[in-house]
Amino acid sequence: MHNSSLINPQCPIARSLERVGEWWSMLILREAFLGASRFDQFQKNLGIAPNMLTRRLQTLVADGLLEKRPYSTRPLRHEYVLTAAGQDFRPVLWTIMAWGNQHFAPEGPAIQLVDSATGAPAEPMLVDRHTGRPLTYPAFRVVAGPAADARTKSRYPTWPATTPTPNPTESADAPTGAAA
Amino acid sequence: MHNSSLINPQCPIARSLERVGEWWSMLILREAFLGASRFDQFQKNLGIAPNMLTRRLQTLVADGLLEKRPYSTRPLRHEYVLTAAGQDFRPVLWTIMAWGNQHFAPEGPAIQLVDSATGAPAEPMLVDRHTGRPLTYPAFRVVAGPAADARTKSRYPTWPATTPTPNPTESADAPTGAAA
Repeated sequence: MHNSSLINPQCPIARSLERVGEWWSMLILREAFLGASRFDQFQKNLGIAPNMLTRRLQTLVADGLLEKRPYSTRPLRHEYVLTAAGQDFRPVLWTIMAWGNQHFAPEGPAIQLVDSATGAPAEPMLVDRHTGRPLTYPAFRVVAGPAADARTKSRYPTWPATTPTPNPTESADAPTGAAA
Repeated sequence: MHNSSLINPQCPIARSLERVGEWWSMLILREAFLGASRFDQFQKNLGIAPNMLTRRLQTLVADGLLEKRPYSTRPLRHEYVLTAAGQDFRPVLWTIMAWGNQHFAPEGPAIQLVDSATGAPAEPMLVDRHTGRPLTYPAFRVVAGPAADARTKSRYPTWPATTPTPNPTESADAPTGAAA
C-alpha cells in the first residue's frame, strides 16, 4: 500500500507518513509550502495521478486550507494558494519532519530546519506558549475541554480528577512575570 | 471519502485528519496514548473493521511504532504497546490537536492540553531546543541536509544560498551560553 516510488524516498515527512497513513493531502500542503501553486507543479513534483490530484485539491479548497484563484483569464487558469489555516499547518509538518529525522533517517537528515540567518540547524521542541515550559508527558496531558460532549467526557480524563488541595503558593492567576 | 461516522466527531485530531488524509494509523496511535493496548479496545474505541485494524496494527509493529507482546499464554493473547519511537509521536499528535482546535473547533475545544498539576490550559508552540527561539517562518526554513541526494538538493534550497558575507559579530561556533 506504500507507493514509495511516487515520492521522494529521502523526505522524512514522507517516511513518517508512510508509517502513519495516507499522505497525499499532507504532501500537497508540503509542496505548497515549497512554492508550488499550479496543478502541473503539484503533479510533476508528486507524481500523483491527475484525477487523484484534482480530488485532493478540491478537498483542500473545500476545507479552507487552499484558496483557488485565477492567475490567467485567457485561457482561464487557476492556482492554489495556502490560506491562513493552511499556513498554520506548517508546525505540524515541521514536527512530523523532526520525528522522521529522529527515527527514520539513519543516514542523517536529507532535509532539515535551519536558522535562515546563520544556517545553524534547529531542533523543534514543543513548549507552552504562555509559560515557555517544555510540553512533556506526564507534566502535561490531554483532558476533556469545555466543549466536550458525553462521549468525549467518557473517553478523556477531566481536570481535576479529585477535589484539589488548596495550595497557598499557587493561585489560579498566572504569575505576573509569565509571558502571555 | 470521510468516514466521519466511524470516529468521534468532536476530536480535533480527527477533524484535522479529515482534512489532510487518511487517519486510521494516527488514530490507533492516539488510542495507544489514551491507554488502549488490546485488539478489542482499539476495535471498540475506533469502530474500525477488524481486518483493517489487523492490517494497520501489523504495519505499525513492522514500522517499530508498536510492540506486539503476549499478555496471556493460555490462551495466547497479545497486546500492542508503544515503542520509544511510538512515544516520540506524541508531539505530532499534540501539534495536530492544537491546529485542529485553532481552526476546526468553532464551539471551543472538546479536548485540550493542560498542566497536570494546575489544570491550566497549555498552548503548544514550537521552539528551537538549542536556543529557545520560536520556530517561525521565514526566520527558520527547511533546507537540504547533509544526507540530501541530487533530487533533494534540486528541490530544496541549500544554506547558504550565496557566499556569506563575513560578519565578525557572528562565528560558526555556538555562543558558550547556548543550551545544548
